[in-house]
Amino acid sequence: MKPQYSGREVLITGGLGFLGSSLAIRLSALGANVTIVDSLVRGCGGNPYNVSSLKGRVRVFRCDIGGASQSLYRSVRRAEVIFNLAGEISHSHSVRFPRRDALLNATAQLHFLEHCSRMVPGIRVVYSGTRQVYGVPRYLPVDENHPVSPIDFNGIHKYVAAMYHWHYARMKRLDSVVLNLTNVYGPRMALAVPCQGFLANFIRKAVTRQRLEVFGDGQQLRDPVFVDDAVDAFLAAGSVETLASRAYNVGGPEPLEVGRIAQIASHLGGLPPPLLRPFPDDSKKIDIGSYCTDTSLIRRELEWAPRVSFEDGLSRTLEYYRTELRHYLPVRDAEPHCQLAPSLERLPRAAAAR
Amino acid sequence: MKPQYSGREVLITGGLGFLGSSLAIRLSALGANVTIVDSLVRGCGGNPYNVSSLKGRVRVFRCDIGGASQSLYRSVRRAEVIFNLAGEISHSHSVRFPRRDALLNATAQLHFLEHCSRMVPGIRVVYSGTRQVYGVPRYLPVDENHPVSPIDFNGIHKYVAAMYHWHYARMKRLDSVVLNLTNVYGPRMALAVPCQGFLANFIRKAVTRQRLEVFGDGQQLRDPVFVDDAVDAFLAAGSVETLASRAYNVGGPEPLEVGRIAQIASHLGGLPPPLLRPFPDDSKKIDIGSYCTDTSLIRRELEWAPRVSFEDGLSRTLEYYRTELRHYLPVRDAEPHCQLAPSLERLPRAAAAR
Repeated sequence: MKPQYSGREVLITGGLGFLGSSLAIRLSALGANVTIVDSLVRGCGGNPYNVSSLKGRVRVFRCDIGGASQSLYRSVRRAEVIFNLAGEISHSHSVRFPRRDALLNATAQLHFLEHCSRMVPGIRVVYSGTRQVYGVPRYLPVDENHPVSPIDFNGIHKYVAAMYHWHYARMKRLDSVVLNLTNVYGPRMALAVPCQGFLANFIRKAVTRQRLEVFGDGQQLRDPVFVDDAVDAFLAAGSVETLASRAYNVGGPEPLEVGRIAQIASHLGGLPPPLLRPFPDDSKKIDIGSYCTDTSLIRRELEWAPRVSFEDGLSRTLEYYRTELRHYLPVRDAEPHCQLAPSLERLPRAAAAR
Repeated sequence: MKPQYSGREVLITGGLGFLGSSLAIRLSALGANVTIVDSLVRGCGGNPYNVSSLKGRVRVFRCDIGGASQSLYRSVRRAEVIFNLAGEISHSHSVRFPRRDALLNATAQLHFLEHCSRMVPGIRVVYSGTRQVYGVPRYLPVDENHPVSPIDFNGIHKYVAAMYHWHYARMKRLDSVVLNLTNVYGPRMALAVPCQGFLANFIRKAVTRQRLEVFGDGQQLRDPVFVDDAVDAFLAAGSVETLASRAYNVGGPEPLEVGRIAQIASHLGGLPPPLLRPFPDDSKKIDIGSYCTDTSLIRRELEWAPRVSFEDGLSRTLEYYRTELRHYLPVRDAEPHCQLAPSLERLPRAAAAR
């Protein structure tokens, strides 16, 4: 990847988050000039500590992508490739605060893409989509032709953002592509933010030595993907000469039962075996049953494959938090208070008119 | 239909528009107590003259469904069934003003449905969707299983609104259903508003005695549905005891080539045959080729079928405008200026926080 990114101007939105910062660290090592924009909206997982190792080597602007700040405009204008990871990923939050989710995941993306298409027309934009757009799988493994049927607001709004990306690509105004990610895990996960999914929950408990709990019978399948593998997928999508498709499903190396995932985490964390618990109502409503990814398309077209086994990836994750935990805990934000940037709270008349 | 609607409290959003007002007139004749809310946003086709024949027999409130007005709340609270037709239908407008389209068709609907689900939980809501969500048809006729792939912002945002309706139905918070309409035509079409589609354009020209122009070779298929038939579909969806499906495609009695449609309109308008013109770039970009509807599902489950032939429907349409034209012309709004209600222009802090 070195030659493709060395000396290139790369913009990462949501770059202080788990995946965004991991991408920033890798890109910086590859010699890219990295600019990060992140609004640090409470509940979305941004954490400046994530890029503390890059001090002086990346530009970081605190601004929201739906806004109209000079920092944002300057960052966009200089970019040669954009990794667009800003947004809210919590399904639970979206159920309780649907309008907040709409603003953060849909409206802000429309504003951002419109800006990009005017300032840097035709630029490659790689968007972090989600498997949640497929809803309850009708077959496994799930490929890109699976019908779309999101079962919560987060899935709806992430799909809206994906449709925006495709629309700009179809109009040849941006060269955008969507990666539909399954559960990504690894160092820098936002353990301090609640409702970030079961893996963050398991890892937090394994690190803080609390016994793990599994909802239901533990037989649901998931195929977690280690963050380094996910970063590789973004780098591939950002650097391939010509995009053959506009959506790729990104999944882990093997499907595992959630009960097995909990066992591995408990074992690596030196804890007793996990407990089985009935599904809480809130979680049941937005549960999708088993999921695993058909990665044939991205393997074929982007020559990407997940390489890190779950045991290996989780070991490296727990290792990270053994020394860095204090920067990720305690859980401070019990609520995703709507600390939206002004431009998201109220659209200025001029913006609304265009 | 008389017994199902007699004495019932019915709310129609967008009730001053073409289809909404036609529904109001029919429901009023059936003995329903009709309340209309309409924000009369410029460019969306609302026209108070449409319901002038109902004076004193319907309540009309000028308020936007994304807002927080007392009129809206009172209207929702008393409703027993809701026909949700508010929105922008112009694809051309949406291309030029994507954010406006997002506010009117997506954000406002989320606000509205959230209000409805709290104030009148479980209420039947019938939403006016569009065939545009399917994009360029992959096969004809298009059924409800056709993949979704909107090619313009209007199609994207109408699909978002549809997903919202399904979400509330899945959560059992509303009993909502979406009718995906193909080209609807008839008396009260918004001839004064530009960019309302080719049929409004043909009818305006036929009525004002200008020669019709057809873009392309005129061989594209469409299956226009007469407004009385469309109204019947809404009445059926609003009154059936239990909804078997959550989306129905609504189409006309037969597919016709656009060239043939133009010939019929020219003939009925006493004009020379239409001229063929190359597609303008703007229109070409959002053109979907041929379209016609598979109406099997709605025929089977709602016992609805289109009954009015295009020739008959168009005669009745031209007949209407022969006496009423002055209330629909001249074309006053060359631009869909963003005359949004305040709540849509800027979300109050309280609304954004929920």
